[in-house]
Amino acid sequence: MELFFVEESNKNLEVGTSIVFSESESNHLKNVFRKEIGHKVSATNGQGLHLKVVIEEYNKKQIKGTVVEKEEHTLPNYSSHIAIAPTKNISRFEWFLEKSVEIGGISEITPIITKHSERKIIKIERCEKIIQSALKQSHQFILPKFNPVISFDEFVKKNQKGYIAHCYQEEKSPLFSAITKGEKNIVLIGPEGDFSKDEVALAIENNYTPVNLGNQRLRTETAGVVACHMISLKNSHFAL
Amino acid sequence: MELFFVEESNKNLEVGTSIVFSESESNHLKNVFRKEIGHKVSATNGQGLHLKVVIEEYNKKQIKGTVVEKEEHTLPNYSSHIAIAPTKNISRFEWFLEKSVEIGGISEITPIITKHSERKIIKIERCEKIIQSALKQSHQFILPKFNPVISFDEFVKKNQKGYIAHCYQEEKSPLFSAITKGEKNIVLIGPEGDFSKDEVALAIENNYTPVNLGNQRLRTETAGVVACHMISLKNSHFAL
Repeated sequence: MELFFVEESNKNLEVGTSIVFSESESNHLKNVFRKEIGHKVSATNGQGLHLKVVIEEYNKKQIKGTVVEKEEHTLPNYSSHIAIAPTKNISRFEWFLEKSVEIGGISEITPIITKHSERKIIKIERCEKIIQSALKQSHQFILPKFNPVISFDEFVKKNQKGYIAHCYQEEKSPLFSAITKGEKNIVLIGPEGDFSKDEVALAIENNYTPVNLGNQRLRTETAGVVACHMISLKNSHFAL
Repeated sequence: MELFFVEESNKNLEVGTSIVFSESESNHLKNVFRKEIGHKVSATNGQGLHLKVVIEEYNKKQIKGTVVEKEEHTLPNYSSHIAIAPTKNISRFEWFLEKSVEIGGISEITPIITKHSERKIIKIERCEKIIQSALKQSHQFILPKFNPVISFDEFVKKNQKGYIAHCYQEEKSPLFSAITKGEKNIVLIGPEGDFSKDEVALAIENNYTPVNLGNQRLRTETAGVVACHMISLKNSHFAL
């Protein structure tokens, strides 16, 4: 079943509330999914609400409806925050966004600029759109937060304690065994050329544990997805 | 360090053996990586060998060299065979090939044609090339086998016992807890429209266990990568 997005906070969304879909969501409702007056559709605000909305007004640009059912999904008891260097080839970074959201359990993404970063600029709006689409496509209700770009140094000083995945031949713990259930996890993922030795040292000073993500040499975007999947798996009820 | 491919079987590769790189690998050696006579490069045949080769002859199309070191990587004690319906959008399927090889631990891939498959044709050579590139890029030495396209029915009759990941609301085991270390695992991944109910029944008749891959609704290519990562993780020395 398709899921549509509404831009309202939880306190403004009750059964009986009138809502207006954005122009782009209205376009989707009308022209892609051929929804008509009287149809009931699923919607979320990305803050945990799963709504059923009946379409009531149908104009050229914006569709209006009324909330007729409301279910609230609670936040998981753990969080995973991936701070990752955007890749030179932006489609690889965008793929990371799509897949990490689809796999689920990711709560926050921060693009970081490191010493070896070849890409220093990203289009925030485009990234947010990809994250929202992946959420809808995978039928989830809690939208991960996408933070503004920040330098590596500033990030680790502001967000102390976490894990840093680097490729140097030094003692590292496997991430999957390092994490415990119900934790707040921050994982730093480096650029194509890895973190610099100084960056690794700065992270360790700020209470980051060096980790590996398996035996393979992973690309940046794959490392991000693998880290995210490990955290999600560790926190699933069936993980041993 | 870059890794190059040689098309020779293990029995023909000893220290002192002369080898010839294919035209495309020679082109890479010469024009992309600027290797010259006397340079020592890493190579593999995809059958577990990690070779060091000294370049000795340098002509227009094919580079010749001599094996000077040989290290043999043994096959893991488990295997993972992913039988997956190629996606309508081929780039999604190609992404699955790249990422599953990169993550590691995949031993065999079979494209299957199911009732709801929208794509019935794939370019085998292109797929093999992607698998080989991903192997080299991630510095691994055992090339997964890429089988010819086969119908779902024929596949499950020929390859009895495994797991089938479907989306119907029926009792399913989580794949990560269903698998045990050191096993031979076959996982069936369906197309965009899922397996048909008849296909699920046929798989069960042939000793397949229905599984889920988490709580999320995953796209075909993501399901393939997630299944592959679960098997690899379960078999890693650090998995609990």
